[in-house]
Amino acid sequence: MGGIVKVYGMPMSTATSRVLMTLEEKEASYELVLVNILNGEHKHPDHLARNPFGQIPAFEDGSLMLFESRAVARYVAKKYESGTDLLRSGNLEEAALVDVWLDVEANHFNAPIYAISYQYVIVPRLFGGAPDEKVVEENTAKLEKVLDVYEERLSKSKYLAGDFFSLADLSHFPYIHRLLRTPKATLITSRPHVNAWWEAISSRPAYKKVAAGITFGD
Amino acid sequence: MGGIVKVYGMPMSTATSRVLMTLEEKEASYELVLVNILNGEHKHPDHLARNPFGQIPAFEDGSLMLFESRAVARYVAKKYESGTDLLRSGNLEEAALVDVWLDVEANHFNAPIYAISYQYVIVPRLFGGAPDEKVVEENTAKLEKVLDVYEERLSKSKYLAGDFFSLADLSHFPYIHRLLRTPKATLITSRPHVNAWWEAISSRPAYKKVAAGITFGD
Ligand SMILES: N[C@@H](CCC(=O)N[C@@H](CS)C(=O)NCC(=O)O)C(=O)O
Ligand SMILES: N[C@@H](CCC(=O)N[C@@H](CS)C(=O)NCC(=O)O)C(=O)O
Repeated sequence: MGGIVKVYGMPMSTATSRVLMTLEEKEASYELVLVNILNGEHKHPDHLARNPFGQIPAFEDGSLMLFESRAVARYVAKKYESGTDLLRSGNLEEAALVDVWLDVEANHFNAPIYAISYQYVIVPRLFGGAPDEKVVEENTAKLEKVLDVYEERLSKSKYLAGDFFSLADLSHFPYIHRLLRTPKATLITSRPHVNAWWEAISSRPAYKKVAAGITFGD
Repeated sequence: MGGIVKVYGMPMSTATSRVLMTLEEKEASYELVLVNILNGEHKHPDHLARNPFGQIPAFEDGSLMLFESRAVARYVAKKYESGTDLLRSGNLEEAALVDVWLDVEANHFNAPIYAISYQYVIVPRLFGGAPDEKVVEENTAKLEKVLDVYEERLSKSKYLAGDFFSLADLSHFPYIHRLLRTPKATLITSRPHVNAWWEAISSRPAYKKVAAGITFGD
């Protein structure tokens, strides 16, 4: 496809930052086109034509328009030969384990960590409210169980799918980055293997570059 | 990998049936090993060793053990050359659109349709209770919005990712099959393009074979 690829979104958006870190790992050039959800730009017809669910990010590569951050990240990981091998497509078994842990992130990890961060970061900053402690505690209990599985898994391999960094690990970064800026940071830091895994993810140049742009929540 | 692949689960489980239909589309031989969630077998140590989240299905191919139905389905779709080309791996753009709509199924469609079917099918049959109408109505409103996006999309292409049947379409079958056996069937049947899409999915031999084994909810 011709021309530079475009990401429609904003750096503080967790789903957008998943795509940005993938692009950085692949050493790809891209343009970030600001779609500001704080003033409703994601519900304008221009953006609904990019993503019919009216969310960010959307992704444009020539005539191809994509959305859903994990699907976009897969596309980016496959399109560029350069940079990190994020999907292990050359090895059917490794690729399958990357897919398993990508689905664990989306189906087990995302909902409770989203709910907690929403209460601590979005509610006070965007709505001037106080976190709903009941929601926080319910989701903390859920996230504890999920992270206990991670702790066990990461005691056996350095990364989720094996001893290699993959899209499955990367996909966790946006909400861990945010959770660490809340009173629930200890959910991560109190688990030695989860914490070491996070140290490995957060020491990557691609993480540092993208995280530097995420000022929201700090 | 040597030997026949094994699916641990049960036919009435939506996530299990997603994997079974994928195996049928790929014309693969497999063994279904019953793990009965009705008597708690999914929380026994044997099964927790297969899936640390204690859910069905799990999938075994020699020494490789996988879980998360969509990840397993991806693996099956890649492993077997035979049968339907479910991921369009030979075409980067088609594959990306399959991934987008697989993620839409998992991230937008699954939660509300699960909640509605749970109230109408699981609550009365397993717990002898009555559906919680508030939960039903809230999730009906959510599912309506999602299906309106599908109706628009399916007015432009026969299937979700384009004019070809893919894993993205297949992945929707377990909960549509179940919803059609509830008073909310009209969410599907009242939308002409969604209904025609369902007719196409449900006329497939792989669907018929797997659906014949799903007696729960009938
Ligand atoms: N499953 C979607 C989630 C996208 C999402 O939730 N985006 C948020 C920002 S991080 C958004 O657009 N929120 C505004 C809204 O949903 O109206 C993805 O992974 O891309
Ligand atoms: N995201 C999982 C969901 C699996 C799932 O929810 N399985 C259900 C049966 S359909 C189950 O095991 N329920 C029992 C439980 O969660 O304890 C997948 O796609 O495999």
